[in-house]
Amino acid sequence: MSTRALSFTLAAIAAVVVAGAIMVRHSKGTVSPGSDAAVALGPLADGIIQARGMAPADVEAALRTYPRPGKYDDEFMAFLSGGHSGSVIVVGIPSMRIMKEIPVYGQDSWQGWLTGSRESSEIVSEGFFFKDMPLSWGDLHHPKLSLTNGEYDGKWLACADKAGGRLAIIDLRDFKAKQIVKTPNTVSDHGNYWTPNSEYFVTSTFFPAPQPYGTYQPLEKYAETYRGMITFHAFDGNAGRIRLEDTWQIELPPYFQDLISAGKKSSFGWMFTNSLNTEMCTGGTLEGKPAMEVGASKNEMDFVHVINWKKAEELVKAGKTVPLGGCRVLKLETAIAEGVLCFIPVSKSPHGVDVTPDGRFICASGKLDPHVTVYSFEKIQKAIADKNLEGKDRYGIPILKYDACREAYVEVGLGPLHTEFDDKGYAYTSLFLDSAVAKWTLGGPDRLAKDEPWKLVDKLSVHYNIGHLTAAGGDTAKPYGKYLLSLNKWSIDRYPSVGPLHPQNLQLIDISGDKMKILYEMPIGIAEPHASNIIRTDKLKAWVTYPEVGFDPKTMKKDPYGINIGQERVVREDDKTVRIFMTLVRSQFRPDIMRVKEGDHVILHVTNVERARDATHGMALHGHNLNLSIDPGQTVTVEFDAKHPGVYPWYCTEFCSALHMEMTGWMLVEPRNDEKQGRK
Amino acid sequence: MSTRALSFTLAAIAAVVVAGAIMVRHSKGTVSPGSDAAVALGPLADGIIQARGMAPADVEAALRTYPRPGKYDDEFMAFLSGGHSGSVIVVGIPSMRIMKEIPVYGQDSWQGWLTGSRESSEIVSEGFFFKDMPLSWGDLHHPKLSLTNGEYDGKWLACADKAGGRLAIIDLRDFKAKQIVKTPNTVSDHGNYWTPNSEYFVTSTFFPAPQPYGTYQPLEKYAETYRGMITFHAFDGNAGRIRLEDTWQIELPPYFQDLISAGKKSSFGWMFTNSLNTEMCTGGTLEGKPAMEVGASKNEMDFVHVINWKKAEELVKAGKTVPLGGCRVLKLETAIAEGVLCFIPVSKSPHGVDVTPDGRFICASGKLDPHVTVYSFEKIQKAIADKNLEGKDRYGIPILKYDACREAYVEVGLGPLHTEFDDKGYAYTSLFLDSAVAKWTLGGPDRLAKDEPWKLVDKLSVHYNIGHLTAAGGDTAKPYGKYLLSLNKWSIDRYPSVGPLHPQNLQLIDISGDKMKILYEMPIGIAEPHASNIIRTDKLKAWVTYPEVGFDPKTMKKDPYGINIGQERVVREDDKTVRIFMTLVRSQFRPDIMRVKEGDHVILHVTNVERARDATHGMALHGHNLNLSIDPGQTVTVEFDAKHPGVYPWYCTEFCSALHMEMTGWMLVEPRNDEKQGRK
Repeated sequence: MSTRALSFTLAAIAAVVVAGAIMVRHSKGTVSPGSDAAVALGPLADGIIQARGMAPADVEAALRTYPRPGKYDDEFMAFLSGGHSGSVIVVGIPSMRIMKEIPVYGQDSWQGWLTGSRESSEIVSEGFFFKDMPLSWGDLHHPKLSLTNGEYDGKWLACADKAGGRLAIIDLRDFKAKQIVKTPNTVSDHGNYWTPNSEYFVTSTFFPAPQPYGTYQPLEKYAETYRGMITFHAFDGNAGRIRLEDTWQIELPPYFQDLISAGKKSSFGWMFTNSLNTEMCTGGTLEGKPAMEVGASKNEMDFVHVINWKKAEELVKAGKTVPLGGCRVLKLETAIAEGVLCFIPVSKSPHGVDVTPDGRFICASGKLDPHVTVYSFEKIQKAIADKNLEGKDRYGIPILKYDACREAYVEVGLGPLHTEFDDKGYAYTSLFLDSAVAKWTLGGPDRLAKDEPWKLVDKLSVHYNIGHLTAAGGDTAKPYGKYLLSLNKWSIDRYPSVGPLHPQNLQLIDISGDKMKILYEMPIGIAEPHASNIIRTDKLKAWVTYPEVGFDPKTMKKDPYGINIGQERVVREDDKTVRIFMTLVRSQFRPDIMRVKEGDHVILHVTNVERARDATHGMALHGHNLNLSIDPGQTVTVEFDAKHPGVYPWYCTEFCSALHMEMTGWMLVEPRNDEKQGRK
Repeated sequence: MSTRALSFTLAAIAAVVVAGAIMVRHSKGTVSPGSDAAVALGPLADGIIQARGMAPADVEAALRTYPRPGKYDDEFMAFLSGGHSGSVIVVGIPSMRIMKEIPVYGQDSWQGWLTGSRESSEIVSEGFFFKDMPLSWGDLHHPKLSLTNGEYDGKWLACADKAGGRLAIIDLRDFKAKQIVKTPNTVSDHGNYWTPNSEYFVTSTFFPAPQPYGTYQPLEKYAETYRGMITFHAFDGNAGRIRLEDTWQIELPPYFQDLISAGKKSSFGWMFTNSLNTEMCTGGTLEGKPAMEVGASKNEMDFVHVINWKKAEELVKAGKTVPLGGCRVLKLETAIAEGVLCFIPVSKSPHGVDVTPDGRFICASGKLDPHVTVYSFEKIQKAIADKNLEGKDRYGIPILKYDACREAYVEVGLGPLHTEFDDKGYAYTSLFLDSAVAKWTLGGPDRLAKDEPWKLVDKLSVHYNIGHLTAAGGDTAKPYGKYLLSLNKWSIDRYPSVGPLHPQNLQLIDISGDKMKILYEMPIGIAEPHASNIIRTDKLKAWVTYPEVGFDPKTMKKDPYGINIGQERVVREDDKTVRIFMTLVRSQFRPDIMRVKEGDHVILHVTNVERARDATHGMALHGHNLNLSIDPGQTVTVEFDAKHPGVYPWYCTEFCSALHMEMTGWMLVEPRNDEKQGRK
């Protein structure tokens, strides 16, 4: 049916219904427990269904996903990585509405992030590689919610930057980034994972870095001088900050370490990370050498890295490290000698390495092998104890016998990437080449699924090119089940064209029944959502305003420069410096005139003295790269030079009251020399 | 019902339904024309409705708004301003899904905007006020689709920057910003509107600027030296570019000009802009003077500015302008003397000024008066002809008699801000203080509404603090009707808390029937959506890839530096400059090694040689502030200095193939002096 015809039909339907009243009738044959009368839809609904050509599955999905206005129908929240947008995106499930974008590595002027505030600049600049080369973006890949007993506690979110070798901590009280740390000795952090009680946030490198770190080493000396790192960032769970002084690393070979996951329950104390390019190919497409895609795909098997981090921690405490780039590093030879690192072969070029909720098994899959290999932690322990080795790699790292560690080998389909889990004993693996999700049964003594263990039981097509997938709570010790998110990298023809850069496509999948069903399709045209974590909404306890007036979100304490109404003042500190204490309230700035002189350095402390929920104000200054967003209670500091004489209006950018348009001010930059006037 | 109970119920329902088959039964009593059998929902749907506690209105809304996976169900697209995020956000209607964010004034690393590409930097830097003070954000307020015969033609989108006094043009072939222009002689552009055939994109200032432009003038000389401007940016509809050389301005008094709208049909050739602060208050909250919210609210009436732009254009052609700041300006005294500018009183502190689709009436409302005043264009013409004046303002501008121009005075409610129109003869006005939308009838000889003219017929509560509203096609000569978007500034308690910065809240309203109904509620936590335009999706004809390999989106022509496979090369131009021609294709860079020397200036021309829809590649370089996004066919140029010796990996940031992880490269910056090594 054409849209024109549909439009006509709906109008006709609407016309016969009196004043919006939908007919509701009662029918027999209820299926809802605890009720003896099910409500059936009336002719209006029938008419819409018919006019729109909705299939029964569409009707079910519409009814299940529709968010009733003003109701808290989103049972879950997904924290999606924004990829190279550098941000985190918070999405309600099942409605698939974006609740917030949290800027982390990149600029966001709506939130005033890196467009003026000294606090945000200070946070971001901590992560710069070179102080003379500021970074205004990052590649945020795997947001991970902090854990208590292996379950999400709703307190913190951490996420590494693949491009920058950095790490960020977000506080879920105010959904803001609080700390960005440059990981020592790395150029790239990719996989990342919390230990089960958030003792450490652990990151693995993707690209190895020449060592000593920061030096030039020719590619010809790659095998000798380049190294990967797995970093155990010590986390202070009360302050919500990484303590660099307690952080330590284990040196790894210059393979590309990939995703990472922590042991839990019986496998607590162990860490697993995948790797590709054990060939140590370095490309050279114009130099007569094979491209990476060829050169890094030669070996039949790459390696799962098995790391005993609890034992490594003891070695660190015992002083078996060397200082390197400001960090304590367990050298590769020490890690080998002390038995904290070994390998298991895995089909070539794997991506995910995922520990089952019971902690007993580790799932990994080479992208070019249509199986998931399931390793048994118990068998791995036995192989280690028995020294049941295939041999050693060129760096002397012991390689456990593949067969000795393998519990199962589950055929799932083409291009398996990443596996998550539900609450009923099933695993879900994304299949990039099949553009599908495979559902298969877990086995072992704790198994829950009614079906035969280690078997594919369902497969669902998704559209298109799925990368990661996320089940609700699906990487924890206690998954929630119910929903799964398919993060599809291409959307191709799923949406009307919005130009050559297409949105990516998230699909919400019902995993509550035997068969997976697509419930909702969500284009995402603001970022590259790379991976996610999904938490129960009721686990989040975010503040609605800051607890007191004059609050600094960076320190989460009273800001020494925060003031209340009546304390506003302009202080000329010296001939070149003016410090201004300003308040904001509906609908005025105090002061609303800043008189400074050409060349003055202006330090501005701005406090939003509102206590009302949602009463955020902005401050945008013409001609200057300054846009602040100041939440109720918040104090923001900004510094700038009044370089050019002239008159610069500023105003509130958040529509705060009926007289918001009048919430304005003027900065007057008086010339020091009457001849030096005007625009340069 | 708690979510836990709901979860149980849904699981129970799912369990009794065999393999996803919803029972479908046929009932009599069809309401769908052209069909004799309406489909009714079966017990599964009834069960969901009951379990979720959905009201009949929820069911109707769910069925009407649900986007069927893979179908093009979004009949309309809204182009929302992102406010001080500096971007435009494209949203499908009725699903309310975000299809794309278009970066304009601000950085967006996902799209590579201002994170490397020379093209984007060149576009944005054209709009800088001071060349030594780059701007990385703007306050994008009123996206307006280009017009042909007063209707959207789907070709271009223009939008001013309130904070910067700038203007941007977006090409709807590729949904990318192509031109940013600094409006001459202004510090702030606020209202903006196309003339009916996109001859001009017209912007009005909000803050007046000291004149001569760019000089310092004390606030004490505000009335004498500050001036507003209305700017007629000449538009080349073939090239899609503003021609600054053909642009002209009319000087206005230093009131705060506000929104703007063009006459059409019988009022073609005229322009209307509102104003507030005719008191010329300049604040002074710490200087013993009234705040703007008080000082700018003293006069009972402000002024609608009535401008005969067709006659002004003739004056410009006749050379009656003066050159000012590189632009031809009709001075205030000339505009008065030649009769191209007059005022009509309007209730104090108005916002919108909106011409009805028939062109016969102009609607304006003071925010503190619960009425919309409707002015008749015919009566205005008569008042001008009869010189029927109340007097003149202090600058000598004639003020037409209010009563002589007024056609109607419609009581709508508290805080009326902005009015749009439907296809059935109704007007819709946003009420900020009431948090409501008022629906009222238009009158006049072309009237369509069946109800009595100039009467409020319906009012709908929205949540909360509505600013602008947008009806589909609602500011054109031929509105589409059907849907209206309420852009609510606060959401307060409508969503679970995501911290002190709340999302704003868009509500989709059904305006097809007699009574308005809220269909969908959409949190928007990525920007401040300020205003919008809604176009029929089928009017958009966006490209899916660029038309040829080696294409420059800035010029929309073949890029002189674009190459195809086999033409890759590294050219050392001199001791300090290396130029590299690179191609990208799944899944390799050619070259994938860049060997340069410390201190080299690197010029990189990167071409994505893909022809497949959606095959966008990225290029992210470690340690350097460089992230490119390159669409199929596109060529991007980037220049940077290789300041620090070392080894910097780069990689593709778009998950492009199963071997995407292997799409990598190395930049080797060899030290010029062996001692100068390492991280600074």
